Amino acid sequence: MPIYTNVAIVGVGLIGGSIGLALRKRGLAKNVTGVGRNQSTLAKALGVGAIDQAATDWQKGLAKAEIVVVATPVAIIAEHVCRALDLAKNASLVTDAGSTKLSICEEVAARASGKSSAFIGSHPLAGDHRTGPEHSREDLFAGRMVVVTPTENTATQLTHAAQDFWQALGAEVEVMSPAEHDKALAITSHLPHLVASALANVTPQDYLPLTATGWADSTRIAAGDPDLWAQIFSHNSAAIVAALDQLLIQLQEMRSNIVSHDWADVKRTLQQAKNIRDALGN
Amino acid sequence: MPIYTNVAIVGVGLIGGSIGLALRKRGLAKNVTGVGRNQSTLAKALGVGAIDQAATDWQKGLAKAEIVVVATPVAIIAEHVCRALDLAKNASLVTDAGSTKLSICEEVAARASGKSSAFIGSHPLAGDHRTGPEHSREDLFAGRMVVVTPTENTATQLTHAAQDFWQALGAEVEVMSPAEHDKALAITSHLPHLVASALANVTPQDYLPLTATGWADSTRIAAGDPDLWAQIFSHNSAAIVAALDQLLIQLQEMRSNIVSHDWADVKRTLQQAKNIRDALGN
Repeated sequence: MPIYTNVAIVGVGLIGGSIGLALRKRGLAKNVTGVGRNQSTLAKALGVGAIDQAATDWQKGLAKAEIVVVATPVAIIAEHVCRALDLAKNASLVTDAGSTKLSICEEVAARASGKSSAFIGSHPLAGDHRTGPEHSREDLFAGRMVVVTPTENTATQLTHAAQDFWQALGAEVEVMSPAEHDKALAITSHLPHLVASALANVTPQDYLPLTATGWADSTRIAAGDPDLWAQIFSHNSAAIVAALDQLLIQLQEMRSNIVSHDWADVKRTLQQAKNIRDALGN
Repeated sequence: MPIYTNVAIVGVGLIGGSIGLALRKRGLAKNVTGVGRNQSTLAKALGVGAIDQAATDWQKGLAKAEIVVVATPVAIIAEHVCRALDLAKNASLVTDAGSTKLSICEEVAARASGKSSAFIGSHPLAGDHRTGPEHSREDLFAGRMVVVTPTENTATQLTHAAQDFWQALGAEVEVMSPAEHDKALAITSHLPHLVASALANVTPQDYLPLTATGWADSTRIAAGDPDLWAQIFSHNSAAIVAALDQLLIQLQEMRSNIVSHDWADVKRTLQQAKNIRDALGN
């Protein structure tokens, strides 16, 4: 027996499509509507079974929705959430899937004010370097972490509804404030992207045949969409600069140990890093 | 019909073991002798079929060798090469498998002087995070790059012999000077390791549940052996500092673009990095 009658997903790319696929394959929703402006993307989402129906008309797509998930790019999430809050009169939960949270939650609170009580931010830590609904996977969230970010104005009930939703898709949920989320993700996600890009940029193309798995691994995320990542950087700039400054201190310390041939300290620093990396596993 | 009658491998870890396995499985050598001081490592190498026989006595192990490969840690390669040049009277090719080349080649030239004519440096860009002969793979070098580093005193014939050897194991070979090698590998291998370690070190342990594939990929090599990597850093310190300084300039530029909210420049920088990364493939 499905838990939800009508779920609407705004933006059916890889994340939105995988949410739809997981809802449908797990029998969690009676009806999943994909909302977007790109007919061909919606058709692909229909084609892979990620949604039951498609709507380019937001009003039609959202009218009956009890749950709305906005899975569009970071820069337009707040606008889309406000539109969804306006149109989905019956929605008990409106959430998103953006990689940053503070600016989105603040913008929604400011713009939707009275209507924003159904919104709570979410960030599923899942994805793939391949994008588009054709790469949707029903298990994209299985065993992965989703951060749910209530503010001081969020009803406890809404936080629980968001937790239930993501757990139903197989995810683990961590609850923290939007600011805490952005500070942590600056370190665990945004800084690695920035650094991977810098590593790629100092590598002359004719050195590529001289790379091995180390370079390939450590620069892999630099292949991500520059537009989406520039949006993420702009929406979390303060925390990213703070994270970068921590890294610069580490790099300067390492530089000074190398210059002064202090190999015991170099080894100790590498050992600390290994301990942290080993704590994660493969 | 085997190409080589007697090959000796000094140090039968993952690299040495895989050389032996490739030589034997490909029928390239009539006899492969593993030379080392650790009985248990030698026994494992025998057990997986990486060598035909083991020797802890260097004199016995090297007396008949026509080819000697020294696959021990960077810090002791030069010493081991000199010892091999002294004992392997019939060797037409003595090479190594170290991740740095200039200091090793210079030390061998200085210490072995008249006897160093059979030595040429090599660096197979292959490996695994798992170490030890039990993880040996006969295809470890297949399709991988090996850099061979003649100096101005190296006979052309010796360079060809080293090329032939690695190509017989399935590798592609690039020939460059030891200094060129070290400059390139500082960028393509040593700097990524340093940066991966710094990324791990700025990550509090309690943030680990908030990491996804991006952090996991970009810090993977930080799990490498701190002792071996400290040796590599100490043997290529000048080139690594130069590479790090290039990276620091990139990071400072990115920082200043983020601070001044210059998102067009941020996006351009990310696009340049993506182009370089995409040129490599997965």
